[in-house]
Amino acid sequence: MTRAEEQALLRQLKSDYRHILINYFTTTDQALKDCIDKFINSIFSANIPVPRIIEIHMEIIDEFSKQLKLEGRSDEALLDYRITLIDILAHLCELYRCSIYQ
Amino acid sequence: MTRAEEQALLRQLKSDYRHILINYFTTTDQALKDCIDKFINSIFSANIPVPRIIEIHMEIIDEFSKQLKLEGRSDEALLDYRITLIDILAHLCELYRCSIYQ
Repeated sequence: MTRAEEQALLRQLKSDYRHILINYFTTTDQALKDCIDKFINSIFSANIPVPRIIEIHMEIIDEFSKQLKLEGRSDEALLDYRITLIDILAHLCELYRCSIYQ
Repeated sequence: MTRAEEQALLRQLKSDYRHILINYFTTTDQALKDCIDKFINSIFSANIPVPRIIEIHMEIIDEFSKQLKLEGRSDEALLDYRITLIDILAHLCELYRCSIYQ
C-alpha cells in the first residue's frame, strides 16, 4: 500500500468509526452490524496497528466533546463510547486469534 | 489441557485480573506492568477466547459493585475500569496481530 492509499484508508476508517459511534446506542438494525463487521475486517485485512484504532477513537471523542462544549452541554455521556471501543477491540482480537488457530 | 487444568488456569487469570484492577489507577511501579504482561501472555499462550476475558471482567466488576453497595458507597467509579479492559484488549490484540505478521 502506498502512503497515499494508507492515508485514504485511514480517512475512510475514521469516517466509518464516526458513523458506528453515532449510531451505536440508538440503532439495532442489521445495517449497523454490517458496518461494524466491515470496519473490523478492513482493519484486519490492512493490518492496521491497534494503537492507530485507539487514536481514531480518541480523535473522534475529542471532536464530539468540543462540539458538546460549544453547545453548552455536558460531555459526560461520551464515556459510554468506551463500550463501543471494547466491543470493536474484542471482535478484532477474536478475529486475529481465530486466524492463528484455524 | 485437561478440563481441571483449564479451570485452574481460569481461576488464576481471574485472581491476576482482580489484582490488576485493584492496583491499576493507584500503582505505577514495574511490578504491576510485569503482572499485566504476564496476564496477557498467559491468555495468548493458552488461546483463551476473548469473550471469556470479558466475562472475567464483568464477574469481578459485579463483585466490586456488590461490595460497594454493602458499604453504602456509590459504584459509579467502577466505570473507569473499562479503561483497564481497553488497555488489556489492545495489548492482547496487538500481540496476536504481530504474531501473524512476524
